[in-house]
Amino acid sequence: MRGVALENTGNPIGVFDSGVGGLTVVRALMERLPFEKIIYFGDTARVPYGIKSAETIIGYARQITAFLLARDVKLLIVACNTMSAVAYEEISKLSSVPVLDVIEAGAGMACTTTKTKRVGVIGTPATIGSDTYPRAIHRRDHEIKVFSQACPLFVPLVEEGWLDHPATRLIAREYLAPVLARRIDTLVLGCTHYPLLKPLLQKTAGPNIILVDSALAVAATAARLLKEKGMETPCRENPEHRFFVTDAPYRFQQTGEGFLQRPLVHLEIIRW
Amino acid sequence: MRGVALENTGNPIGVFDSGVGGLTVVRALMERLPFEKIIYFGDTARVPYGIKSAETIIGYARQITAFLLARDVKLLIVACNTMSAVAYEEISKLSSVPVLDVIEAGAGMACTTTKTKRVGVIGTPATIGSDTYPRAIHRRDHEIKVFSQACPLFVPLVEEGWLDHPATRLIAREYLAPVLARRIDTLVLGCTHYPLLKPLLQKTAGPNIILVDSALAVAATAARLLKEKGMETPCRENPEHRFFVTDAPYRFQQTGEGFLQRPLVHLEIIRW
Repeated sequence: MRGVALENTGNPIGVFDSGVGGLTVVRALMERLPFEKIIYFGDTARVPYGIKSAETIIGYARQITAFLLARDVKLLIVACNTMSAVAYEEISKLSSVPVLDVIEAGAGMACTTTKTKRVGVIGTPATIGSDTYPRAIHRRDHEIKVFSQACPLFVPLVEEGWLDHPATRLIAREYLAPVLARRIDTLVLGCTHYPLLKPLLQKTAGPNIILVDSALAVAATAARLLKEKGMETPCRENPEHRFFVTDAPYRFQQTGEGFLQRPLVHLEIIRW
Repeated sequence: MRGVALENTGNPIGVFDSGVGGLTVVRALMERLPFEKIIYFGDTARVPYGIKSAETIIGYARQITAFLLARDVKLLIVACNTMSAVAYEEISKLSSVPVLDVIEAGAGMACTTTKTKRVGVIGTPATIGSDTYPRAIHRRDHEIKVFSQACPLFVPLVEEGWLDHPATRLIAREYLAPVLARRIDTLVLGCTHYPLLKPLLQKTAGPNIILVDSALAVAATAARLLKEKGMETPCRENPEHRFFVTDAPYRFQQTGEGFLQRPLVHLEIIRW
């Protein structure tokens, strides 16, 4: 195992998502692990996953996992909350390399953050409906009370670029009201689109609530894992990342660069 | 041709859409042509089309057309503005039966409605970006000025059921402001989700602007065509309609019944 790991240290990290959202994870990884090569797969032709059935999502996840494994990734990161809620086990079964996901990372960070043991979780209807965050949190600490809220309009609002629009503020107030009423001290942003709404959500939630950004959480977990397993890259040059998408939809480049906070180059379209 | 038509008069009308939106067309057809049998196909696993590329949309449209033709429909109605904007020609080429679509119907009704020859069109980014409404209107009357506006948040707002929510009113005011500033007298609802927002949009636009509902327009066109071609059904019993979807996503039944304004029965899931 150790030999295999050393052999593969220069290999890329595979990150996958249903669309552009996972680029917030890529951004967090670039900042945390600047010399690691990244292959990103965004299933933009079939986005959004958040409203699809478990069976459909699992089929898509299998296909993308095979695609990335064929490109010799040393680590897989499921950057889509919906996919990790629904298909994590299936992906792990298929994968010969370690698999990390935003839910485990976000749940872990929520548990170390909360003092009052009252945690809110917001996400897409599929993520919230799957109950995966409460289960992941309770596996670590069964005393924590978890209050969940689906926020189906946040993804389209982020993709419209309305990150500080009066309508977004109004919608955020309405979505957050029920969880805030539960006197939480920690709020998990359970969707990779939501880090772009962080300033607005922090204002809505108030200064006493700590927001857990699952993109930052999974990048921290990845850094720890690579170090522990001796799988860090030996390269000390800026790597070339590659971005695969299944479609290049309306304003994808612009939206993607907003998520990544830098130019999106080496973009390839895979037609499935 | 006449013989073929007579032979097939009891056959169903095939209606297809990228999701639930086309159910507003089914509802209009049920009211206009209560004895006609309808087969509906909603591509709910791959919705929304509005943000996908033309190439991807054309591929999907081909697949659905073949599915409905194999079920002996006598008429095809493309109830998805995005699909008819992008793939109408391709569908017509494949089809052995007449093909109607919401864009031609809506454009036709806009031309007979406007007095000032100033028409607004609202729709998804893909529909608006394709410029199909202005072209369809100008083929009929090149003097009409058309002002278009993409409204990407309307579909998620309708699917959230926020048909008269303060956030929806705020967003509608913002989206409509540029077209209203052009002193239009007619506004085409260029997306099958939008009829559910009609009361709110009428309030936003004011009483002097006539809203053209493309679902009602295409049902009227279908009624005329069946009559002209002698293709009306001889049945005088309430028909059994069939509904095929590629996935049964979050709240589909509830949303679909809202669109249809009656119970959604005989629902079958096709896994592609």
